[in-house]
Amino acid sequence: KNSVLSSRSEAVTFSTMFRSEHPRRSSSHHEWRHNKENSNALADDVPEFQAYDGTPRSQMPDDLQEEQNRREHHTDLFASPNLIVRRGQEFRISITFDGPYNPSKDGFYVEFRIGVNPQIHKQTAIIVSPNQDNKGPWQSQLLENKGNIIEMGITPSANCIVGKFLMYAVVVAPTGLIRDKENSSEIYILFNSWAPDDTVFMHDDTERMEYVLNQVGTIYCGSISNVMKRPWHYGQFENGILDACLYLMDDATIPLISRGDPVVVARQGSAKLNSQDDNGVLTGKWSEDYSHGRAPTSWTGSVEILHLYASNGVPVNYAQCWVYAGVFNTFLRCLGIPSRVITNYNSAHDNDRSLKTDIIVDCNGKIDKKYTKDSIWNFHCWNECYMARPDLPLDFGGWQVVDATPQETSDGLYRCGPAPLYGIKQGVICYPYDSPFVFAEVNSDVIFYKRDKYGKLTKVSVNETYVGKMLLTKAIGQDVPINITELYKFPEGTMQERLALQMAESYGTEKDRSVLPKVDVEMKVTVKPVTLGEDFQLVLIFQSLGRSLYNVDVFVSGNVMYYTGVSGPEFMSTTLQVQVDPSRQKTKVPSKYMNKLFGHGNLHFFITGKVKETGHMLNIMHPVSLISPQLTVKVTGVPQVNQRMFVTVEFTNNFGFSLKDVTLTVEGTWVLPPKTKTYSSIAPASTITWTQSFIPMDPGLKMLMACLDCEYLRQVCGTASVYINV
Amino acid sequence: KNSVLSSRSEAVTFSTMFRSEHPRRSSSHHEWRHNKENSNALADDVPEFQAYDGTPRSQMPDDLQEEQNRREHHTDLFASPNLIVRRGQEFRISITFDGPYNPSKDGFYVEFRIGVNPQIHKQTAIIVSPNQDNKGPWQSQLLENKGNIIEMGITPSANCIVGKFLMYAVVVAPTGLIRDKENSSEIYILFNSWAPDDTVFMHDDTERMEYVLNQVGTIYCGSISNVMKRPWHYGQFENGILDACLYLMDDATIPLISRGDPVVVARQGSAKLNSQDDNGVLTGKWSEDYSHGRAPTSWTGSVEILHLYASNGVPVNYAQCWVYAGVFNTFLRCLGIPSRVITNYNSAHDNDRSLKTDIIVDCNGKIDKKYTKDSIWNFHCWNECYMARPDLPLDFGGWQVVDATPQETSDGLYRCGPAPLYGIKQGVICYPYDSPFVFAEVNSDVIFYKRDKYGKLTKVSVNETYVGKMLLTKAIGQDVPINITELYKFPEGTMQERLALQMAESYGTEKDRSVLPKVDVEMKVTVKPVTLGEDFQLVLIFQSLGRSLYNVDVFVSGNVMYYTGVSGPEFMSTTLQVQVDPSRQKTKVPSKYMNKLFGHGNLHFFITGKVKETGHMLNIMHPVSLISPQLTVKVTGVPQVNQRMFVTVEFTNNFGFSLKDVTLTVEGTWVLPPKTKTYSSIAPASTITWTQSFIPMDPGLKMLMACLDCEYLRQVCGTASVYINV
Repeated sequence: KNSVLSSRSEAVTFSTMFRSEHPRRSSSHHEWRHNKENSNALADDVPEFQAYDGTPRSQMPDDLQEEQNRREHHTDLFASPNLIVRRGQEFRISITFDGPYNPSKDGFYVEFRIGVNPQIHKQTAIIVSPNQDNKGPWQSQLLENKGNIIEMGITPSANCIVGKFLMYAVVVAPTGLIRDKENSSEIYILFNSWAPDDTVFMHDDTERMEYVLNQVGTIYCGSISNVMKRPWHYGQFENGILDACLYLMDDATIPLISRGDPVVVARQGSAKLNSQDDNGVLTGKWSEDYSHGRAPTSWTGSVEILHLYASNGVPVNYAQCWVYAGVFNTFLRCLGIPSRVITNYNSAHDNDRSLKTDIIVDCNGKIDKKYTKDSIWNFHCWNECYMARPDLPLDFGGWQVVDATPQETSDGLYRCGPAPLYGIKQGVICYPYDSPFVFAEVNSDVIFYKRDKYGKLTKVSVNETYVGKMLLTKAIGQDVPINITELYKFPEGTMQERLALQMAESYGTEKDRSVLPKVDVEMKVTVKPVTLGEDFQLVLIFQSLGRSLYNVDVFVSGNVMYYTGVSGPEFMSTTLQVQVDPSRQKTKVPSKYMNKLFGHGNLHFFITGKVKETGHMLNIMHPVSLISPQLTVKVTGVPQVNQRMFVTVEFTNNFGFSLKDVTLTVEGTWVLPPKTKTYSSIAPASTITWTQSFIPMDPGLKMLMACLDCEYLRQVCGTASVYINV
Repeated sequence: KNSVLSSRSEAVTFSTMFRSEHPRRSSSHHEWRHNKENSNALADDVPEFQAYDGTPRSQMPDDLQEEQNRREHHTDLFASPNLIVRRGQEFRISITFDGPYNPSKDGFYVEFRIGVNPQIHKQTAIIVSPNQDNKGPWQSQLLENKGNIIEMGITPSANCIVGKFLMYAVVVAPTGLIRDKENSSEIYILFNSWAPDDTVFMHDDTERMEYVLNQVGTIYCGSISNVMKRPWHYGQFENGILDACLYLMDDATIPLISRGDPVVVARQGSAKLNSQDDNGVLTGKWSEDYSHGRAPTSWTGSVEILHLYASNGVPVNYAQCWVYAGVFNTFLRCLGIPSRVITNYNSAHDNDRSLKTDIIVDCNGKIDKKYTKDSIWNFHCWNECYMARPDLPLDFGGWQVVDATPQETSDGLYRCGPAPLYGIKQGVICYPYDSPFVFAEVNSDVIFYKRDKYGKLTKVSVNETYVGKMLLTKAIGQDVPINITELYKFPEGTMQERLALQMAESYGTEKDRSVLPKVDVEMKVTVKPVTLGEDFQLVLIFQSLGRSLYNVDVFVSGNVMYYTGVSGPEFMSTTLQVQVDPSRQKTKVPSKYMNKLFGHGNLHFFITGKVKETGHMLNIMHPVSLISPQLTVKVTGVPQVNQRMFVTVEFTNNFGFSLKDVTLTVEGTWVLPPKTKTYSSIAPASTITWTQSFIPMDPGLKMLMACLDCEYLRQVCGTASVYINV
């Protein structure tokens, strides 16, 4: 009765194009450390033979068509040769039988299993058959029947679990079900921004190219008056990165059943990226002495960090916000969730639900560091990811803020988001997750208090526009910043802005409502862009807004500062007396800082004025980022596949002193893994040159990025790009 | 110029009525183990002398008026003699100066400090002065000035931090501020349901008496057809319990700044009550063998558990849901958050966002335990707490579900809620926290699947009314249950019910929508109340709903069962063939179970019918709770303060076999701490009697509760009450 005869041992074989490089069912390069129910670990105990009493047939599956499937599913960039597809979209496999296939008689199906206890009604086990009698969530069809060979199309549901499945051909033999374990295949299924039914769907192809597929990016830093940038190699398609990301999901014990939900994956991912609570990927450090690791400023990308972490599960030293955001971006894009890195200039770090950042000044107008615990970061980086929010009302889908930098525990763990951007802008901050916190980061008022000798605080001034001054992200398809402040806030002073603030207050945040006496004197400060190593002048501008003359005592304090808002040493402290009339008056204050310079080359000025006649206080905070020297990065050689090329990095020490213990890192997308060199000293006026060879293996645009780092220089980067011909 | 002279060493003294029993600033009876910033630990490093250059006065505070303050603040029931007040309500202290007090001249204020780094603008330090020139959040007034003695009223803000503060009198002396550390006083500030501005405010005094002040309660268990009850001693005012609750907040690292927010306190408390993640209070165990601790059924109240935990921070063995709910209720009521214990009969335990509990039956109609992973608990207990939700739209205040039993990780940790009841009822489940999970617990459909030999699942029937059948809680002021199902759901079949389900679906839950073929045969089951030890009959009732005759193959399976829905041994398995016509037909099935009896005395019947003529399947689940024997508890002696009395507990073994390793616990509110006795064997027909003496120290109604526990009897309790006269 059997139309197709075969021996059981040969019954089922998947073949792939990459068999030699890709051993079947190789264990991943890391251990699965966690409880099995929440692990992507693939079970070994699936029965090879499962008896029943039917009368079916046997046959042989064959070709996974990796190349075509990967191209159609936008996964061809992945380094690993596996079958990697996106959900909600059909992929095709060919199956060769040892005789003509008869859909109505031949019992055969393909089974997908994930985790140690796969179950059909939990969608951790899925079966599809070519004759389309399955009514499960995954669709399948018989595309072509050429007698012994059939082509089958399989469409995973658009909300299915994301991760690594084992795919078995199951043959219905006369005595039971036969699974050939030797010929099972691993298949990775990812989120799909190209599938309209996937909650991470994006309409625009240029957006998907940038937010899912772009492997390099630019992260903005510096300060609002001097935006600087760092190149970053996300490397989400590099060898081992996808497995590292699946390892992170296991390590974060995300229940398998939730791994198709980008809200859960992004939220738990934001917790897992930092080492707080759960020994996650990166250890933060916001003070000098990086001797137990690498300086946050010395990394050029995510790949090395994820490789290190996935190799042993030990947190990698050290990170600051752009490192968290860079690696988190890799995680999200790798799994297929569209994402980008955002920089918020003057980011409040509030630790209650109030919208107030409190600055306490002493009787002399100087910041009282003992009592000022809130901080404002010159800039702070986080991520946005794009997804529908089926758990919330309709409007709240779209970009969501997620933040992996450990600032505040969100609901018990260090993590943040996803917080819907729409809610932040409208002040509707009652929806999960962490909307009030993100709202405060961009909307806090800065409140200056004077502390008297009894410890009493008197409010002296309020700055409502300092925080969240500007939000930047890299533009689509080109290396320029775009200003996305309008996605977070309505324009200052508009009716909508006022309504959004009122809305936020109705959800328990507290906006400052104090009415302060009108101040008749205006004080402003400007600084021209300053190159690191050069002294410069602060220009203070005073104007009387009434008709009167006023005398103002001015106190100028300058600190070297980490971008976090934590002050380093004070390098200047000057007192001035200014007479102010209704015309604009400029006063120049020279600033010398090199003897105190360290770290990021950020300076922070705090200027207080006290109007003698009225007793009113004036307060300004003004961060100044110094322009760092650049690295010269050049690529030479014939830009052709399999031809040796060279990247040359050059740096000249233009400072009047030696730079000590300098590290230089260079890395290239696909062409060069990160390489680091150390120089114990670079003498004044001397130049270092490092040439590294590489052989591009495939064509296309390649980026090379270099970064020089030492105690006195933390922002020295350079990039070059080259187009490799076939 | 100084109108009042004093030496500095005598300058400031608080005196209390209880000095001898209550050493000043005694360290708590447990260690403070956590990071200092998140600890209620009181700093020792407050400067005793703080110099400045003013010219003030010195004076002496005196009397904390504990008795009157505690009575007015409804904290007089607390065993510890400390000053314990509720926020948003004035308390009074008297201060004695060594000369007449002059408000306009004498520099004096009272300072409250909590944690190691108290700060005024974070409200971890508060200063108030009798001359009312402070504009801080706490109010104060000079009530009376009798020359050397003033009476001062202080009103903590209605949203202030809840915990233990140190209160200092600060004297403004000519050379600086003087704090007398020796004479600082501890003051506990709690939530206040009597204060209209507190978010835990309740309107009704009888409600507050029950939900904040009642120290005993009843927790319902058993099954829907046989509701049983356990007495529970919450003991929130007993010695050491308040300190234990503050210790829990420290141990849960609730930021000090959030300890005035009942939403945060309840949520983090629900995480801290179970040992998962964070080594919290109670270890759960849902299978026999309690040899490493005490059986969950053997506890009579929370006091012993909290004392044990607070003494060393090691989780206490063992708990099941009513123990978690009982101890959590103590925590909430102790801190002043109104709360009650709820029992949900047939509680779904869903582990995805679907509203489906899947029961897989094999070809024979038997539950397939390998594939059935969802469970339905005969009953499940959780807590409700009452509070406004300023973080949510207006309607969502009121009762909130919180659940400390570790069922599912909520957002990474084992905890649940607060989920607003209003949202659960209306299906508006998009608001934090965990509303979809609670909604599923009371609204899931039970879906029966048949699993064929290929592993394919076919839906055979759906029961939409089984889950969340009834919710009970103890009535106010009396020991009877009230049915509060209508707070969770609209009545079955109403338009509102349908709308609420649709609303929930719009937030991503999935309701079953399959249309199943109409079934012409109805099958029901009834069981009369059954006493433990007696065999009984199941009565199956069949009726043909059409005009036809049908033949039905019936499969009856009976398992002994934990209340959790986990099956124990099967004690019966019977196959019947029934002919069904349009009249009601009863079929009796005898059931013998004693040889398999263990644990909670819950039986679970699973009955499947297969209609031969149509192939339709009928499915019924039916839990049966057996009526346990009661303990006799009697109180004798003269019910008068300081007179010796006796409580006698009596139990007769009416079973035909010996009971082994029996523990008997007896405990009385305020009169008797928990005492436990062990009996290695109680022979058939023999009676044990235990008489314990006690001496009531204060008047009023006292409850005594006893509980007998052994492997074969887990639900044997008894109570007695006695009114003690003065």
